Amino acid sequence: MKAWQLASCTPHAWARAVAADLPALLSDHAHCELKAAASAMTLLRCHGSRPGLAARLLPLVREELDHFQRVLRELQRRGAALAPDRPSPYTRGLLAAAGAPRRRDDGYLRALLVAALIELRSHERFARMLECEALDGLHDLVSPLAEAEERHGHLFLDLALEAAPEGDVRAAFGSLAAAEARVLAAAPFCPRVHSGPPAG
Amino acid sequence: MKAWQLASCTPHAWARAVAADLPALLSDHAHCELKAAASAMTLLRCHGSRPGLAARLLPLVREELDHFQRVLRELQRRGAALAPDRPSPYTRGLLAAAGAPRRRDDGYLRALLVAALIELRSHERFARMLECEALDGLHDLVSPLAEAEERHGHLFLDLALEAAPEGDVRAAFGSLAAAEARVLAAAPFCPRVHSGPPAG
Repeated sequence: MKAWQLASCTPHAWARAVAADLPALLSDHAHCELKAAASAMTLLRCHGSRPGLAARLLPLVREELDHFQRVLRELQRRGAALAPDRPSPYTRGLLAAAGAPRRRDDGYLRALLVAALIELRSHERFARMLECEALDGLHDLVSPLAEAEERHGHLFLDLALEAAPEGDVRAAFGSLAAAEARVLAAAPFCPRVHSGPPAG
Repeated sequence: MKAWQLASCTPHAWARAVAADLPALLSDHAHCELKAAASAMTLLRCHGSRPGLAARLLPLVREELDHFQRVLRELQRRGAALAPDRPSPYTRGLLAAAGAPRRRDDGYLRALLVAALIELRSHERFARMLECEALDGLHDLVSPLAEAEERHGHLFLDLALEAAPEGDVRAAFGSLAAAEARVLAAAPFCPRVHSGPPAG
């Protein structure tokens, strides 16, 4: 089966740049884990009557909560506290690009593909961070998170393929992946996982 | 220490009335468990820098998710599916009665007391259901839920007492409990845990 590819590649310079403020990077990621859990719970609230959906999504929600706790502990270990959450131009832009759903089933597919892309991008960014010497101290924390983000991305894609014909899912994924790359490139740089390119 | 009392008592007739539509009652409660988990996660998002808060709230969130799954299984065992969530006049009324917080700390105390009252009322309603013969078939499901709702209510009150002087917490609780009873009495009756009095 053809792989599900992101439409852009993060440069090594991005990982070196986010390494400059680890408490900010960790705080942002702690919030991302909470938001990923909340998004999956929203899917359950709106589509929980789909057979088997809860059994597939609840382990993911629990894992995101475990990761939130793990990232929070790493912050505390470093003498830092969770910073307030900040609006994410990336997520806002991606949702805007996905457009408002016209029907309930559209909304389900759209939510799954947005979630899949966020997870796959998080995986790609973590992989870049794992290659960066300045982030060596985060290796034990980030490595299992990276694995989970990729696995979650594929879970959302599997759910999409169960809900719609493969051709439709691939077409929708392709155009949303292109939009995702554009939104990410246009986002401002700051020490967070879904930030735009660093200056210079 | 003086107990934390609700300002009204649910009549036995309410339990007999909700017993008439168990799938609707169970669907509504499944959504309540998800919403309780989501509310605790919102507390973490907004106040997660408070030392120890995550360690206190994450087990509660995980327990609410377990209960959601348990209630969903009971629905399936009865050949029913999760019905769409419906707006709750009770929760809306309670939040309106609690008023908009003026400061961040007010918002924290307000959220804790609203959560405590919802949990304590759920406990009271479940206790009434456990006394109702027509609901005997739900005993094994409801009994541990009732215990958990009471325990969660007291966890929120403990957090409130750690955040503000006891006199302030008791005064705020007392007036909010009075409002809660008024809101509940004014809510329409239907087969859900936080519905108003049955007709007749």
